[in-house]
Amino acid sequence: MLDKFFNPKKVVVVGASRFPGKIGNVIFRNLLDKKFSEFCVNPKAKSIYGKKCYSNVLQVKGKIDLAVIATPAKTVPGILDECGQKGIKNVVIISAGFKEVGNLKLMRELEKVIDKYKLRVIGPNCLGVFDSYSDVDTMFMLKQRLHRPKKGDISLVSQSGALGAMILDLASKKHLGFSKFVSYGNAIDVNETDILEYLGKDKKTKVICMYIEQIKDGQRFVRVAKKIKKPIIVLKGGMTSAGRAAAKSHTGSLAGSGEIYLGALRQAGCIQVKSIEEMFIMAEAFEKIKNLPKGNKIQVITNGGGYGINAADLLEKAGLRLVQPSKRCVKQLNKKFPAIVSVNNPMDLLGDSTNERYDLAIKACAKDKNNDLILVLILTQVPLINERLANKICADAKKKPLIAVVTGTGLADKISKKLKEKGIPCYEQINDAVTAIKGLVFRK
Amino acid sequence: MLDKFFNPKKVVVVGASRFPGKIGNVIFRNLLDKKFSEFCVNPKAKSIYGKKCYSNVLQVKGKIDLAVIATPAKTVPGILDECGQKGIKNVVIISAGFKEVGNLKLMRELEKVIDKYKLRVIGPNCLGVFDSYSDVDTMFMLKQRLHRPKKGDISLVSQSGALGAMILDLASKKHLGFSKFVSYGNAIDVNETDILEYLGKDKKTKVICMYIEQIKDGQRFVRVAKKIKKPIIVLKGGMTSAGRAAAKSHTGSLAGSGEIYLGALRQAGCIQVKSIEEMFIMAEAFEKIKNLPKGNKIQVITNGGGYGINAADLLEKAGLRLVQPSKRCVKQLNKKFPAIVSVNNPMDLLGDSTNERYDLAIKACAKDKNNDLILVLILTQVPLINERLANKICADAKKKPLIAVVTGTGLADKISKKLKEKGIPCYEQINDAVTAIKGLVFRK
Repeated sequence: MLDKFFNPKKVVVVGASRFPGKIGNVIFRNLLDKKFSEFCVNPKAKSIYGKKCYSNVLQVKGKIDLAVIATPAKTVPGILDECGQKGIKNVVIISAGFKEVGNLKLMRELEKVIDKYKLRVIGPNCLGVFDSYSDVDTMFMLKQRLHRPKKGDISLVSQSGALGAMILDLASKKHLGFSKFVSYGNAIDVNETDILEYLGKDKKTKVICMYIEQIKDGQRFVRVAKKIKKPIIVLKGGMTSAGRAAAKSHTGSLAGSGEIYLGALRQAGCIQVKSIEEMFIMAEAFEKIKNLPKGNKIQVITNGGGYGINAADLLEKAGLRLVQPSKRCVKQLNKKFPAIVSVNNPMDLLGDSTNERYDLAIKACAKDKNNDLILVLILTQVPLINERLANKICADAKKKPLIAVVTGTGLADKISKKLKEKGIPCYEQINDAVTAIKGLVFRK
Repeated sequence: MLDKFFNPKKVVVVGASRFPGKIGNVIFRNLLDKKFSEFCVNPKAKSIYGKKCYSNVLQVKGKIDLAVIATPAKTVPGILDECGQKGIKNVVIISAGFKEVGNLKLMRELEKVIDKYKLRVIGPNCLGVFDSYSDVDTMFMLKQRLHRPKKGDISLVSQSGALGAMILDLASKKHLGFSKFVSYGNAIDVNETDILEYLGKDKKTKVICMYIEQIKDGQRFVRVAKKIKKPIIVLKGGMTSAGRAAAKSHTGSLAGSGEIYLGALRQAGCIQVKSIEEMFIMAEAFEKIKNLPKGNKIQVITNGGGYGINAADLLEKAGLRLVQPSKRCVKQLNKKFPAIVSVNNPMDLLGDSTNERYDLAIKACAKDKNNDLILVLILTQVPLINERLANKICADAKKKPLIAVVTGTGLADKISKKLKEKGIPCYEQINDAVTAIKGLVFRK
């Protein structure tokens, strides 16, 4: 039944406004000219952007799949009741002024209406829903401030609207593709676990990201998460005493002991991250890598000795292993490489490396059983490599999971862009690549 | 005596070449038309880029301060002897083919010449020297591949040439200013501690960054480092067994036990980092922050509750403290803020925050004794803040160390650029800001 939030045929905005900048204006405008038809309710207006304005939802003709309410808090229970009368089953309440300001009486009134009509409600006090495929978008942030990300496989659930909005905006900057976003605010009805369950079955979602401060029903969350085969990347707010105090004042959440959550999330098979940056890095890796690594053995290929050493240090600290290439691999490469290149792990192709030397190295390592994933480091300050290196890497990356680090100006940006377009996770810094590898290897 | 490496009046390049792409060509061209005069030695050429070509250094008239040698390894001892005869005291040997390929005999020949004339030699097998102020630049990387960073206060010493080159290139991309760079390669004479000592006294260096795999004389290093008041940020390669094995094959370095180095570097008062990214983050913070924090109490100001909670979590995990604002500060702000804003730590100014609300908050916190540093988080997806916020923050940041995190597209880039120009460290992600704060608070 949650599907109507993401794929409605008819949507009504209650509290739509004629005045640019108003929340009800931004929401209605963002829903215009989409694949669904949209209606507006505002007793004070005749029409908004050329669309006839109704004084209440009951007057709108035909079946409505989704209502978005953006009116003052005290009017919401009455409007929700009208939605129920009208037979609208899915409602997003954007309006604030309920639990978060201590208005529990108003919350109870909403709950009664929800029970009466068996509604599914997202909110109140939230940004609602964004779907890059169906174009549903109830976020009241202007598009010039909050750039919407392109279509993709990552979906996001966030207890904090602002944090979620920032993640989408950053995703657009980093050219990461998103499928769905839900900000559920006070969670009067639909909560984090309901959305998780839905996304687990959603065909357009490959990676699930979550920001949560509190989980309402921990046991159900663990049960639901365990069944989902997709990676679930969780940033839990309030893991320390300082964070918990802040969470309490933010959404009134009792964020609970960090250790209990840590254990529950681990039991649920979630991948826990400490920051938004880690969430992005891992989401990108899981979105792009099709053949997940089967073990923790990493082969490093580099054209800078020092960079290879730094990678070895960071990988070992992260619990990953560098095993020497097999004899067969060494023999094969020794035949083709100049004597000065030694076939090790890290394999240092040296500063005078060419595209071809990288190609040979990756091809041989992709066949080698002594590694489960190849980490290719490319310093672009040297003269003999060029943009075509990206093509070679893409062609070689099909047999083994491969992650690239490309560091520098100009040429680095070109190579990195090409690799990403071809679905190879690519980072500017080794530590980010190691974070990604950690996620891929130590998943569930 | 090391000063002539950075501030020579006359420089000679031995092995200068007419052919673009050749190492001796790149080096000579990078030294043309600078504040010093330059000469070239190549017995096969008459002139290079219009400059008369000599068949050896003895033929060059007048006193030469610095020679750069880029000829085949076997010719280097003879050329170095001629440098000695000519009275050149400072020599950079770029040429490879010595210790790193096991040619110890050739190393001993060089050592004899160095002793004979009491020369100061950087290299062999190195990139040599870069100085953004004097324009000395012996790096054989083309400028279109290795963009040189702008003038600034950070100096870098790197045992790995490639890693050092990459750091400079990235610095130019990130608009970080650098003063000096030394790649010392096999360190036949001048080593990491010599350069550290020089940079400790150098007026154009405020922050020292080092990449080292091996320290030749640990006790002297500790002694020298201890005396230096400037921050010394060290990335030590080969801290794990995998890294040590790689270091051995890279520069033949016996990288030694990670724990021994950890202890020695701590004793020396160095700030240890695990990655290039951490090095950049801390270098930028130390370069920009003029009044270092006096303690570990951090006040967080945010317009996104979830972001504030994440900051609180990361700060507490890093050993930093969030103390509530003083009664006086709370009273003062309560008078001016709408009732819904609660004056806490993190202080959540809410999504409808204006420039003015940030201004009031920062001003009050800058005077508050309950914090030693202010961390300002700005999510730019909301409508009521704009570019002018940067000016307000800059004006307020004079009384207390302040670090900013600005996250988003468009507006975020504008605010962040302005803050950086005015000397305020500014990051896109909270975890980077926390890394910077850790460095600033837990320095020496």
